[in-house]
Amino acid sequence: MSLTTSSTPQGFSAFITNLGIRDTTDDFVVIKSAVPCVADGVFTQSLFAGPSVTISRDNLKDSQAQAIVVISKNANVANGAVGIADAQEVLQLVAAETGIAAHDIVIASTGVIGRRYPIEKIRAGLSGFGKKLTAVDFDAAARGIMTTDTVPKLATRQIGNVNLVGIAKGVGMIEPNMATLLTFFFTDAAIEANSLRSIFRSTIDKTFNCLSVDTDTSTSDSAVILANGLAGEVPLEDFANALQEVAHELVLKIAKDAEGATKIIEVTVDSAINYAQAKKVAKAIVNSPLVKTAIYGADPNWGRVAMAIGKCETEQEINSEKVVIRFDNVRVYPDTLSPENLEQLRQIMSQDKVHIHVSLNIGEAAATVWGCDLSEGYIEINGKYST
Amino acid sequence: MSLTTSSTPQGFSAFITNLGIRDTTDDFVVIKSAVPCVADGVFTQSLFAGPSVTISRDNLKDSQAQAIVVISKNANVANGAVGIADAQEVLQLVAAETGIAAHDIVIASTGVIGRRYPIEKIRAGLSGFGKKLTAVDFDAAARGIMTTDTVPKLATRQIGNVNLVGIAKGVGMIEPNMATLLTFFFTDAAIEANSLRSIFRSTIDKTFNCLSVDTDTSTSDSAVILANGLAGEVPLEDFANALQEVAHELVLKIAKDAEGATKIIEVTVDSAINYAQAKKVAKAIVNSPLVKTAIYGADPNWGRVAMAIGKCETEQEINSEKVVIRFDNVRVYPDTLSPENLEQLRQIMSQDKVHIHVSLNIGEAAATVWGCDLSEGYIEINGKYST
Repeated sequence: MSLTTSSTPQGFSAFITNLGIRDTTDDFVVIKSAVPCVADGVFTQSLFAGPSVTISRDNLKDSQAQAIVVISKNANVANGAVGIADAQEVLQLVAAETGIAAHDIVIASTGVIGRRYPIEKIRAGLSGFGKKLTAVDFDAAARGIMTTDTVPKLATRQIGNVNLVGIAKGVGMIEPNMATLLTFFFTDAAIEANSLRSIFRSTIDKTFNCLSVDTDTSTSDSAVILANGLAGEVPLEDFANALQEVAHELVLKIAKDAEGATKIIEVTVDSAINYAQAKKVAKAIVNSPLVKTAIYGADPNWGRVAMAIGKCETEQEINSEKVVIRFDNVRVYPDTLSPENLEQLRQIMSQDKVHIHVSLNIGEAAATVWGCDLSEGYIEINGKYST
Repeated sequence: MSLTTSSTPQGFSAFITNLGIRDTTDDFVVIKSAVPCVADGVFTQSLFAGPSVTISRDNLKDSQAQAIVVISKNANVANGAVGIADAQEVLQLVAAETGIAAHDIVIASTGVIGRRYPIEKIRAGLSGFGKKLTAVDFDAAARGIMTTDTVPKLATRQIGNVNLVGIAKGVGMIEPNMATLLTFFFTDAAIEANSLRSIFRSTIDKTFNCLSVDTDTSTSDSAVILANGLAGEVPLEDFANALQEVAHELVLKIAKDAEGATKIIEVTVDSAINYAQAKKVAKAIVNSPLVKTAIYGADPNWGRVAMAIGKCETEQEINSEKVVIRFDNVRVYPDTLSPENLEQLRQIMSQDKVHIHVSLNIGEAAATVWGCDLSEGYIEINGKYST
């Protein structure tokens, strides 16, 4: 079955507005399904996870949900008992307006940590919205969940009659651990809960969990999928492929829009003893500030990749004499580079997407991870974000 | 016994010169003792450790050495068999000139990775230097081992008749693991090898191994101490205290001169279950790019400290409800901050040294670590270093 990028899934409606939480851009998004959905979610492992995460985790235990609420520009994290009460009040307000039980609503929140919601503004803004729900403009929804993002992130696929849409936000504090920032998938596929869960988790693991912008794990990471069944069944493998494609597309969009990023870095490590080893080495490279700045400056200082491999402590020891390092098709280690090679390397490091390929030559496992370079822009944005 | 900062230890002489390895600044330092020294060294755990590290580790196995050679501006790492042969040739040249056996010489090398020494220049530059050794100018020695350092790092203490000098270099690729960049200590104390080893390793563990600039572990980290005994014995506790003070002073000098740094960050985590937990949490905070940029911008975004604690996976789980976070004497969590508190916080974050204090309130252990903020300067320096 061929995959095409296409229209929106049946049966979803939305209310997207500005509540004035931080500025005048949209900061509140509700997307509801006409019928109950099979649903799954994975969330941050942060010990400081906020009430949005803990409540949503509970609400998804029965693999059922019918609406998603997102408040952006304020994470409602580290606010103690008042933060929990605020989150519950938002759910009750949405439940009252939509007629959906509060335990069938997923809530997510993103923005500054340690600041209370302007709850009066939220009460005022949500009053009567239940009558204003319209067909979902997913582009507007993707915009409504942004914080310092500069572009909305949206990806779609069609599998037969079934439609799949994914949206995501995230530009910093990105080293997802079991989930990512905020990403939501909507489909009208009919799919059984266990199949959805297994496909969704494996997809997130190989896509969002392989992305790192700055090694900082957000307190609010949430990835949720809703499948309302209105378009009927499709082969599971086709659905899984489409989901993988949509997630991969969103990951690249996040890496590209990462705070201050000018280039995407893709690192593949192969012939490792196991997947954990391959991923650990790949992450060490993609997260190294010295590798990131060298790529930003297109400085052919490939020795920093050797340095990053060298600092990895893995259970099965890496033998530096067996390691081969390539940038695209240029082998830089253990060879001696000619001046022509160095110039070639500089060219590769000037591309929008820089691919580093490391072979450990001690096993069969491989992993690919994504990240971005580190520029003055990251400092500029993060030295001044909260104020 | 009182500690004073003072003169140089007896019995050491030096040759410091420019061999033209990268530019016209000094790049070659030999310091030799008139008599054999009790010696110890700790080195990088990097899997890509170069021949300087592997040879020096071997040469110090008998706890004896009589000279240290440092080549700066080229790390001689990831150069394969030719790199090993080059390092051995340097040792042979120094042995021939000084009359010290090659296995009693420690070698260290720092600079770009993956580029061969200009061995002809080294041969020419070392010819006849044995006749040019003079009293050690430790300030010049500290300059001679610099790469992108902007100031030499030197600290001294006198313990009775005994003199102790430490020098260090390092501004980036700093997350020492069992050792640090390059740091050398010289003393005329008479001290038994086992005592020296135990005091030296415990000192390095609590000072250099608690320093992180950018989470990147160098392939060349080396910390070495030579004690030639010419000034006789002093109480071990006094010697240990002096060594601790000298090492701590060097660590602060490195943090202050770190690439692009404008402020030192000191993080203390106390009431943890054990030292490992305290250190892990403290390192997560001091290494967080978002905490570092907030401090650079003096942005009172303390929630990022909560985020950094939240991402720590430790064996004994941290309870976010028991955590207390302070900047100097201002408690920021779990309290609600007044506008006055926020202004106070902004003042604290504008100081040259910012102290973050976290209490986990689940045990008795504590750790203090040091780092620095992250500015455009780091990007500027590291986007352009090798070329």
